[in-house]
Amino acid sequence: VTPRSPRIRLGDGVEFERISRALDAGIADAAATVPGLRVGPGDDAAVLADGTVLSQDMAVEGVHFRLDWISPAEAGGRAVACALSDLAAMAAEPVATLLAVAWPGGRGEAGLQELLAGAGRVAAAYGAPIIGGDLVAAAGAAVIDVTVVGRADPPVLRAGARPGDALWVTGRLGAAAAAVAAWSCGADPEPAARRAYATPVPRLAEARWLARHVRPSALIDLSDGLAGDVRHIAAASGVRATLDTERIPLHPAAGSDGLDLALSGGDDYELLFAAATTDVEPWLDAFADRFGAALTRVGSVDTGAGVARRDRGGTRPLERTGFRHFEGEAT
Amino acid sequence: VTPRSPRIRLGDGVEFERISRALDAGIADAAATVPGLRVGPGDDAAVLADGTVLSQDMAVEGVHFRLDWISPAEAGGRAVACALSDLAAMAAEPVATLLAVAWPGGRGEAGLQELLAGAGRVAAAYGAPIIGGDLVAAAGAAVIDVTVVGRADPPVLRAGARPGDALWVTGRLGAAAAAVAAWSCGADPEPAARRAYATPVPRLAEARWLARHVRPSALIDLSDGLAGDVRHIAAASGVRATLDTERIPLHPAAGSDGLDLALSGGDDYELLFAAATTDVEPWLDAFADRFGAALTRVGSVDTGAGVARRDRGGTRPLERTGFRHFEGEAT
Repeated sequence: VTPRSPRIRLGDGVEFERISRALDAGIADAAATVPGLRVGPGDDAAVLADGTVLSQDMAVEGVHFRLDWISPAEAGGRAVACALSDLAAMAAEPVATLLAVAWPGGRGEAGLQELLAGAGRVAAAYGAPIIGGDLVAAAGAAVIDVTVVGRADPPVLRAGARPGDALWVTGRLGAAAAAVAAWSCGADPEPAARRAYATPVPRLAEARWLARHVRPSALIDLSDGLAGDVRHIAAASGVRATLDTERIPLHPAAGSDGLDLALSGGDDYELLFAAATTDVEPWLDAFADRFGAALTRVGSVDTGAGVARRDRGGTRPLERTGFRHFEGEAT
Repeated sequence: VTPRSPRIRLGDGVEFERISRALDAGIADAAATVPGLRVGPGDDAAVLADGTVLSQDMAVEGVHFRLDWISPAEAGGRAVACALSDLAAMAAEPVATLLAVAWPGGRGEAGLQELLAGAGRVAAAYGAPIIGGDLVAAAGAAVIDVTVVGRADPPVLRAGARPGDALWVTGRLGAAAAAVAAWSCGADPEPAARRAYATPVPRLAEARWLARHVRPSALIDLSDGLAGDVRHIAAASGVRATLDTERIPLHPAAGSDGLDLALSGGDDYELLFAAATTDVEPWLDAFADRFGAALTRVGSVDTGAGVARRDRGGTRPLERTGFRHFEGEAT
């Protein structure tokens, strides 16, 4: 059995990412007919004319999570937290959550009840109570699909990074991916790594605080790994991004593969944003005091296109997937 | 292999309906903390303070649809149409759709592309273009989860039916369930029955027209069968509902089991509403002319509780599930 990363969106025989891009392009045409739609496919969430922000995030058992890794309550809470992170990525205020769950009937109802309770607790804790959804019988694997609703006025987008900006991240990276790597090798992860994976913290208040004080020019949440997500900002903003890999703040539980895990492991749900250093530096202490996490400068934005990595050895292209120990079929 | 109805929400060993009710009750408490939430769990959709209407509807291959019954394009379109029908049930105007699909990678991408295209066509046709969503690898069965966004000012709810009102339905019932019944017996359905199942028509314009002209006191869409859905109106409105079963308009393709299929077969996606006969009669011809479908009086609303069926043989309790040929594990 080839273990699968819970974050990969690429499966045997189907290039989901390519189709997803084609879908984005196709539905962008359709979305253009929505009166006043501010942001359509291609950002972390859609934004309607009145500032309503919407995002939907589906997690499939055996692909995105495993119930021999985390409890049903953690799986439910995690699915909601990951969806809420898309609101953070727009600097949106959470309003409400809809939850759809497909659960294999033969597995009994205790796990389902725990999953629902875990999802409800996380949703309520972040100010987005569950107001509706669906509950159906699954044909095999459990599926958790979460729709989150927020308000942003205005949203902070992936597009907007300007040459001369620096790139910043919140918190420390790599711990959640280290847990997945451990499980995938049949080992038990460190408790802190397990916690980072099982109970991710969407940076909702942090994002709104940053939008108010620092006014980032571009913002995204780190769901696919820093290498992939910085690429999204560079592409959407029409700029070149360079990561100073020696500056990337690694979580102590990320282990010896920490840098690769931070770049390509995903599941950190920290924020990545672009802002001029002079706009960020006055707020570094206030952010750390308020949120108990650091803002760290991890790179720069220049004219051009594409993404690069820079360290004392020089500057070179940033590979798309730097870490493949447990990637299965990823291309 | 016991064939399963695509509409049942009850699986082996788990009483999804009971858990769903408990969930509704539990999250109603949480939802009460959403500022200005107008309608929470328990109606066809949630309504935020500003009139934004939200509903999420999950369809699982092998449980709610089968790809040896309908094409991927039909499955995608049908999932969107069923979700949009929840907006019709609130007399809401469609605004946008989010679509999440889990697709088994090993099955190749042609079917996925067709599914996405079918979903996109139906969403655009009803004025709710797809503006976002998710696309992930499935672990087995395909899953289609649709979130629809609309506006209603005001929404028409399940609660509100008054003693003295009559009960009305749009269109003709039983054809979609006849198709499922045929497939479940290994037979090919009649073309009209197949069409009713594969390409349901959400009564969006009809619902808004009715809200403007007839002003129904209560409204719901027929997804679970007339017997179940009239029970929802009776319970939410605190009234007794009696169906005149001989008046129920059966689709010609519903066959000899038509009445049972209409009562318990589901998947009709017609509207059921309560309104005084004097408020409806002036509009009967205009509705038929405009929408090519009839409004039919099918029962009455009285003081009391519960639901009954009435015919020339008398009045008796309306059983919860009148038709069980293909219900599998339904209770």
